[in-house]
Amino acid sequence: MEQQPNSNRRNFIRNVSLGSLAALSLPDIVSAATKDMKAHAKKVTLKKDAVILFQGDSITDAGRKRDQTEANNTSALGNGYAYLAAAALLKEFPGKNLKIYNKGISGNKVYQLAERWDADCLQIKPDVLSILIGVNDYWHMFNGNYSGTVKTYRDDFTALLERTKQQLPDVQLIIGEPFAVNGVKAVTDKWFPAFDEYRAAAHEIATKFNAAFIPYQAIYDKAQQSAPGSYWTGDGVHPAIAGASLMAASWMDVIRK
Amino acid sequence: MEQQPNSNRRNFIRNVSLGSLAALSLPDIVSAATKDMKAHAKKVTLKKDAVILFQGDSITDAGRKRDQTEANNTSALGNGYAYLAAAALLKEFPGKNLKIYNKGISGNKVYQLAERWDADCLQIKPDVLSILIGVNDYWHMFNGNYSGTVKTYRDDFTALLERTKQQLPDVQLIIGEPFAVNGVKAVTDKWFPAFDEYRAAAHEIATKFNAAFIPYQAIYDKAQQSAPGSYWTGDGVHPAIAGASLMAASWMDVIRK
Repeated sequence: MEQQPNSNRRNFIRNVSLGSLAALSLPDIVSAATKDMKAHAKKVTLKKDAVILFQGDSITDAGRKRDQTEANNTSALGNGYAYLAAAALLKEFPGKNLKIYNKGISGNKVYQLAERWDADCLQIKPDVLSILIGVNDYWHMFNGNYSGTVKTYRDDFTALLERTKQQLPDVQLIIGEPFAVNGVKAVTDKWFPAFDEYRAAAHEIATKFNAAFIPYQAIYDKAQQSAPGSYWTGDGVHPAIAGASLMAASWMDVIRK
Repeated sequence: MEQQPNSNRRNFIRNVSLGSLAALSLPDIVSAATKDMKAHAKKVTLKKDAVILFQGDSITDAGRKRDQTEANNTSALGNGYAYLAAAALLKEFPGKNLKIYNKGISGNKVYQLAERWDADCLQIKPDVLSILIGVNDYWHMFNGNYSGTVKTYRDDFTALLERTKQQLPDVQLIIGEPFAVNGVKAVTDKWFPAFDEYRAAAHEIATKFNAAFIPYQAIYDKAQQSAPGSYWTGDGVHPAIAGASLMAASWMDVIRK
């Protein structure tokens, strides 16, 4: 009981910081989350006529029209972070004649990327390949609908990138960290610490393949100092508009200006 | 004939500047286009819990799902500049609890906004109302499908804003300049100078109603120093991704940080 006044005061301070003061704004969120992260130091340079491919699961897919196949097509890019990053790229590099594709497919795990890799990556011959994959590799296992483990994830992802580098030795890689926002709908304490192993595996693989790494988990964690988790993601896994926009800004942060 | 070498040199210089050098990047395009423009000095301040409404024609509509009515809904915002601006707003002001709506409808002229204004504006009670309207008021007349003139446009637009200010005296207005990119598909020399009168009318009205004004025509004109018109708009009227992204950045430029 004696701590009540202090506790109220703490709540007041927290409420203020979640409210009008908005303690962290962008790029603060991105820079605070990536500070001291060695892998993030790796940047990607866009050459003229560069082909950029976004690959992944539903977070990348984001409602894209799969019958649209041309580059830089609004419907073909969906309405998630990949589209927002494409919009930023096309605006900021008008002289580079970039060709941007999104081939994310909802529900995919790494082995499903591998099954469609010839058509949906190698034949597109990307100069820059951005991959965000892993939350389903964990989630479907957690739900009892998939028998793969974190070892499966690491092994499949490593094999996929070895195959990619063999076919496309000069490709520049960007690997996004799988993330989950604890306390929002689908994501509970039960996810952890097991899910963290998938994040660590993605980071290891990024280092091994000299990829730029985007620490989405740290970014979502940091963002919750400005607004609650449910502001950034509707269900803990899929970004709301604010989350997608934050991810696109983080993605752009690994592109050399 | 003697001028050939000089002419070639000029072409070379132009080609280089359209190519890898990309003379103007953002925010250069926006700031170069808005320099010395008095109306642009007007900025909009977002209070906490602000309701923001985008209104207009197909450029604003951009494929939005009209059966989605809640705020900050990805499908309800379409995939054009309004969605891109919403994504930037929600990312940059996480503490403000913004509620963002898009009620643009493809093909609309000012009188059609007026017909649906009760439901699609006044009842929403926006704190910030952004309107981009006028290209159809000109285009449909030019095609012989509408009898309105620039006087009709000016009178209808003025009446709409008087009605709005009467119902919502504290609303902050943002008016976008109608634009057309000459030489791209639908837009030819025949549009000018008649179309310019609609641009001037929009600017006059913005000044009269103390609105923030976004000089989209100057922005598209300036952008063509970095990439051709067809890079920014598919048909001279509707933005490509790069154009929508440029417009969203210009829109964000009138929001006080």
